[in-house]
Amino acid sequence: MKHFTPGLAVALILATPVLADNDPLPSWNDGDTKSAIIAFVESVTDEGRDTYVDEDARIATFDNDGTLWVEQPMYTQLAFALDRVKAMAGDHPEWKTTPPFQAVLEGDMKTLGEAGEKGLLKIIAATHAGMSTGDFEQITGDWLADAKHPKFDKPYTELVYQPMLELIDYLQDNDFETFIVSGGGIEFMRPWTEEVYDIPPQQVVGSSITTEFKMVDGKPTLMRTNKIDFIDDKTGKPVGINSHIGRRPIAAFGNSDGDFEMLQYTTIGADGPRLGAFVHHTDADREYAYDRNATFGKLDKGLDAAAENGWLLIDMEQDWKTIFPE
Amino acid sequence: MKHFTPGLAVALILATPVLADNDPLPSWNDGDTKSAIIAFVESVTDEGRDTYVDEDARIATFDNDGTLWVEQPMYTQLAFALDRVKAMAGDHPEWKTTPPFQAVLEGDMKTLGEAGEKGLLKIIAATHAGMSTGDFEQITGDWLADAKHPKFDKPYTELVYQPMLELIDYLQDNDFETFIVSGGGIEFMRPWTEEVYDIPPQQVVGSSITTEFKMVDGKPTLMRTNKIDFIDDKTGKPVGINSHIGRRPIAAFGNSDGDFEMLQYTTIGADGPRLGAFVHHTDADREYAYDRNATFGKLDKGLDAAAENGWLLIDMEQDWKTIFPE
Repeated sequence: MKHFTPGLAVALILATPVLADNDPLPSWNDGDTKSAIIAFVESVTDEGRDTYVDEDARIATFDNDGTLWVEQPMYTQLAFALDRVKAMAGDHPEWKTTPPFQAVLEGDMKTLGEAGEKGLLKIIAATHAGMSTGDFEQITGDWLADAKHPKFDKPYTELVYQPMLELIDYLQDNDFETFIVSGGGIEFMRPWTEEVYDIPPQQVVGSSITTEFKMVDGKPTLMRTNKIDFIDDKTGKPVGINSHIGRRPIAAFGNSDGDFEMLQYTTIGADGPRLGAFVHHTDADREYAYDRNATFGKLDKGLDAAAENGWLLIDMEQDWKTIFPE
Repeated sequence: MKHFTPGLAVALILATPVLADNDPLPSWNDGDTKSAIIAFVESVTDEGRDTYVDEDARIATFDNDGTLWVEQPMYTQLAFALDRVKAMAGDHPEWKTTPPFQAVLEGDMKTLGEAGEKGLLKIIAATHAGMSTGDFEQITGDWLADAKHPKFDKPYTELVYQPMLELIDYLQDNDFETFIVSGGGIEFMRPWTEEVYDIPPQQVVGSSITTEFKMVDGKPTLMRTNKIDFIDDKTGKPVGINSHIGRRPIAAFGNSDGDFEMLQYTTIGADGPRLGAFVHHTDADREYAYDRNATFGKLDKGLDAAAENGWLLIDMEQDWKTIFPE
């Protein structure tokens, strides 16, 4: 509890039961998962134990899509890119007959899916490049302020998982430095992660396109080129962690096979306690249920390897009292 | 003063003069340079002024070679690479007749200089690549523990500038987040910057070669390839800052034209107070004197542009009482 006032202390002492008020993870149901998380944190923060970890080595990494916010029916950044194609179509009459833009404009998701990664990169180049970093921040900010999720009819930044917000907060209260390590675009996330997750820009690692520095009209400007710089997914995640953080995490949270290598890097062959965990989407009613056969957020080999590696499976339906913030 | 104890407070009240004890920059001579630095820090930390800057935007960046530690008669990392060529030569008999290795082994710096960047990259590939990040850390750590500077006969990590250490400390005490942004190799610096500068690995930005994640003998391993990933110099510095930090600094310190664009990015066209400064090497007796014609750390267009842009020139001879820590 960060801001502990005398008034609150008195209230807590008078309250019965006191323990519930001190629960660091109130949106988590009591059970093995919650106990394992708390046991891990206590094991690395108790100076009396030989599992103690110095504060500056308490690094925790979080995937974003599907781990901290909703990634169905498609990645939020893809929804942004498709909306941008529609918004920009007036200036590109040729898109009406040019794949993959034609498929986007006609809402033909099947053809778009068949265009694969190559098609996606064309859409990214058309919608994410050729502007300054400042202009891109403006465009994404405007979109996020207006766009609503098709199922929940809420802004995407409200569709973050309350139990994970509590987990970030709990780790920070225990002097962990918390990082996002996402396959999503680093500049798509940074403008809002501090407000939504309490994770500042310098603690966000993601995929990127190459930027170039130029003076434009006497002002220092970073221009976004259409060249992919780095894909922060799968084996890219340990690479991105090493590049940005320079230390191995002691805890890592993901939800898909894209996080597999991050969990390996965090937990295998390390001295001392490590925590690796997958959020398992098991809740078709309150969110979505998907794993081995998902188009976005496929969790297959991770599901098989979890037991062998001692990775925690966070069962959304069983372990979480609530999904989203009130 | 972070850890202010009652006993120390009494000592300070009894001491005469008290002011000298409170000097945040005791190794700096009083004068315009020191006053300008202090005035800047006060202007952004005084909540009563409209120049106040929120703590989370107080980002300060420091070049390393020639700004925080000695870069003459050659960059420390180049001295390391040349020593490595000599140490590895037994396993590479062909180097005796292969440029540029032959020049290194014969101590022929003129021929080595003529081999230029292309020659240097061959030496980097031979000495910095083809091993895991852990092995590289071991090798550099062993070298830094043994190697001595040819002029000062001291370990390189002791040839850091005491006034700059005080400046880092002063900024940190005022809730700045301090970053290194160096043309040097990021993995050459990270193992020791926390101990020497109080700057942890995640706040070090530098040049890098591409790494690849693999499981080796069941252990997660990052292998250093011989492919250059990023050159954190000149226009690369704003790019590296944007990539790693995601915010524009409000203060930047360099010493060469390699830092020119970092100072532009930090100071030009920004709202509110900004501080850009070059350490000007003017002290042939206590350190080195060089600027426009230097092979390493050339300061030419920066010297011309300083006045126009309001950048501070830190005159090593005039402004610094001492150069190195005692």
